[in-house]
Amino acid sequence: MDTIVNRQWLIDGNPAGRSVELSDFKRVETQLVPLLDGKIRIKVEYLEFTPSLKGQMENRLDYAAPTSHGSVMRGRGVGEVIESREPDIKTGAKVKAYLGWQDYATLKVDDVQVVADDRFLRAHLGPLGSSGMTAYFGLLRAGKPKPGDTVLVSGAAGAVGTMVGQIAKIKKCRVIGTAGSDEKCQWLTEHAGIHGAINYKSEDLESAIHQHCPDGANVIFDNVGGSFLDAALELENLAIGARVVLCGAISRYETYPHPPGPTNYFNLILRRATMQGILSPDYASDFPKAVDEIKGWLESGEFIYREDIQKGFDAIPASFLRLFSGLNKGKQLIKL
Amino acid sequence: MDTIVNRQWLIDGNPAGRSVELSDFKRVETQLVPLLDGKIRIKVEYLEFTPSLKGQMENRLDYAAPTSHGSVMRGRGVGEVIESREPDIKTGAKVKAYLGWQDYATLKVDDVQVVADDRFLRAHLGPLGSSGMTAYFGLLRAGKPKPGDTVLVSGAAGAVGTMVGQIAKIKKCRVIGTAGSDEKCQWLTEHAGIHGAINYKSEDLESAIHQHCPDGANVIFDNVGGSFLDAALELENLAIGARVVLCGAISRYETYPHPPGPTNYFNLILRRATMQGILSPDYASDFPKAVDEIKGWLESGEFIYREDIQKGFDAIPASFLRLFSGLNKGKQLIKL
Repeated sequence: MDTIVNRQWLIDGNPAGRSVELSDFKRVETQLVPLLDGKIRIKVEYLEFTPSLKGQMENRLDYAAPTSHGSVMRGRGVGEVIESREPDIKTGAKVKAYLGWQDYATLKVDDVQVVADDRFLRAHLGPLGSSGMTAYFGLLRAGKPKPGDTVLVSGAAGAVGTMVGQIAKIKKCRVIGTAGSDEKCQWLTEHAGIHGAINYKSEDLESAIHQHCPDGANVIFDNVGGSFLDAALELENLAIGARVVLCGAISRYETYPHPPGPTNYFNLILRRATMQGILSPDYASDFPKAVDEIKGWLESGEFIYREDIQKGFDAIPASFLRLFSGLNKGKQLIKL
Repeated sequence: MDTIVNRQWLIDGNPAGRSVELSDFKRVETQLVPLLDGKIRIKVEYLEFTPSLKGQMENRLDYAAPTSHGSVMRGRGVGEVIESREPDIKTGAKVKAYLGWQDYATLKVDDVQVVADDRFLRAHLGPLGSSGMTAYFGLLRAGKPKPGDTVLVSGAAGAVGTMVGQIAKIKKCRVIGTAGSDEKCQWLTEHAGIHGAINYKSEDLESAIHQHCPDGANVIFDNVGGSFLDAALELENLAIGARVVLCGAISRYETYPHPPGPTNYFNLILRRATMQGILSPDYASDFPKAVDEIKGWLESGEFIYREDIQKGFDAIPASFLRLFSGLNKGKQLIKL
C-alpha cells in the first residue's frame, strides 16, 4: 500500500480573552498508519464551523470535552469511508463525525454516524446537524412560539438564526431578524421570506426593534448578546410573558474580562418574562424525530437556508475566522 | 359631629435615579368631610412598606397605577371601619386596603378586603399579604423546588426573603440565605431555622456561596441583584437546570443610569438554566388557596417570620427609608 500523507491543522494557541488568529493553528503533514481492527478511515469531504469551537480551544465551555495544545483541531464534518476494519461499516459509506481539521480521520464505529440518505449529506452539517437541532429545540422547547407571535432573532442570517426564522415562519409567527449587512438583510426578507430585517450596524437597534415589533417580541432568540440583548430587553420591546432563548453570544467570545450583562435584565420582572439558556445535546433523544420533520420541510422547499462554502485544506483556519467577523453568509462550511 | 383632623403624608418629590429622602414627603393636616353614600371610613392601624413603592413614586414600574405629586403617598395597611355608608360593611370591621399614609382613609367597598379572622390581621401585611404571595408563587411556580434542592435566597432576612426560606424549608429544601448583618444571619440560622447564612458585607459572596452550595444552587431567589446575582450565576454556584427567580433588585433602585446586568448571565447557557421575572398579581386567582395554606403553617408554628414595627404617624417616611439602608429586621411595618 502506498504511503498516504494526511495534512492536519493542529491547535497551536489558546485564544482565551482575545480574537482567534491564524497563528493559533499549525499545519503539519503526517503519514497514515495501517488501519487497526475495529477502526474505519474516512476521507473528509466537508467540515462545518461553529463559534463554540473557540470556547473548546479555550477549554472554557465545560460542556465539551477539553482540547489540548498540539492535537488536531476539533470539527464536525462529513466524508466517505475509504477503508473499514469494522464489519458494520462498508467502504463507500457516507458518515458524519467529529472528523477534525484533516484530510483523513481514523475513528471507531461508535464515533461515527452513517448518513443513510446522502441526498442530505451536507445538510447534516446544517439543518439536520447541530445548528438545526439548536434552532429547533431552542425555539420550540424554550421559545414556545404560538401562531401569531412575534419572534425576534439575532444573527438571523447565521446558521442557527436562519433556521430559527424558518421554523418560526412554519409555526405561523411573524419573524424579525437582525444581521450585519444590507446584503444579509435583503437575503432574509427577499429569499428567506422573514417579515423584517434590521441591519444592526447602520440602524439604531432599540428603535428599529420597536418599529418592527410595536407590541413587543413574544420570543427573543439570541445568538449575539451585547447591545442586541439590551435593546431587545427594553420595556417597549419585550411583550408580557416573553420567552428569551439564550443560544450564544458571539459579541462576547473575544473579550476578557467578559463585558457586563444586559442592564435591562430587570425588565424580565416587569414583563414577567423568562430567559432560558439552551444546549442542544439535552434534547438528543428527540433528534431523530426533529431530523425527520426538518427533512420534510427541506423536501417540500418551505425551509430555506444558505451555505457559505469555502474551498481547500489550506483555507480551513481562515474559514473558521469568518464567523467572528461576520463574513459568513449562512452556514460556514469548507469543501476539502 | 366633631371636626376630625386627618394627618397625611403627600408625595413631594420624584426620587428617580437617586435615594428616596425624607424631603420627598410633605406632612399636611386636613379636615375629614362628611362621608358620602357607598363609602366607608377606616382608621389606619398599621401600614406596610415595600421597595416597589419607590418605583411607584417614580411612575417607572408600569405595572402599578401612576402616582402624582401632591397626592397622599400610597401604601397598603390594615385598620378598622369607623363609619360606613355601605350596607355590606359594618362599623368595627377590620379591613385591608391601599389606605395610604394617613390617619383615616375614605374608600369604596370594592377597594377594601374585609379581614374575617382578625387573629391574623397584621399577617395580612406580611405572610398573608403581597410579600407572602410573592414568596409563595415566586418560589413554587417559578422556582419549582424539589425536595433536597438547594435554595439560595438573597435579602433572606427581609419580608419576602424570610418567607421564601420558610416555604423552601417546608418543601424539604436546603436553604442558604444572604443578609447584611451578623445579627440577621444569626436570626436566620438560629430562629428561622435555615441551613446557612452569609453576611454579604463581610464575606466574599462568590466563595461563600460555593462553600454553602458545593453542588451549586438549584433555585436562586433574588431580591437584590448586583453583586449577589453575579456571584450566584458563577458557573460553580449554578446547578445544571437551575431556576433563577427574579423578584426584585434593591441594589439598583437608587442608581441611574441603571448599573449593568449580571456579567455571568451567559452561564445560563452552560447550565441550561432559566431566569424568570415574577409579579405576584399574576397569580391573584390562586391567592385564597395560598392564604389558607400559609395560615395553616402559621397556626402550626412551622412558619417563622419577623416584623419590624416602628411607631407613630410622624415616623412613617423614616420607616420607609429603613428598607433601602437595610435597617429593617424582617417585614417593615408601622403602627399609627
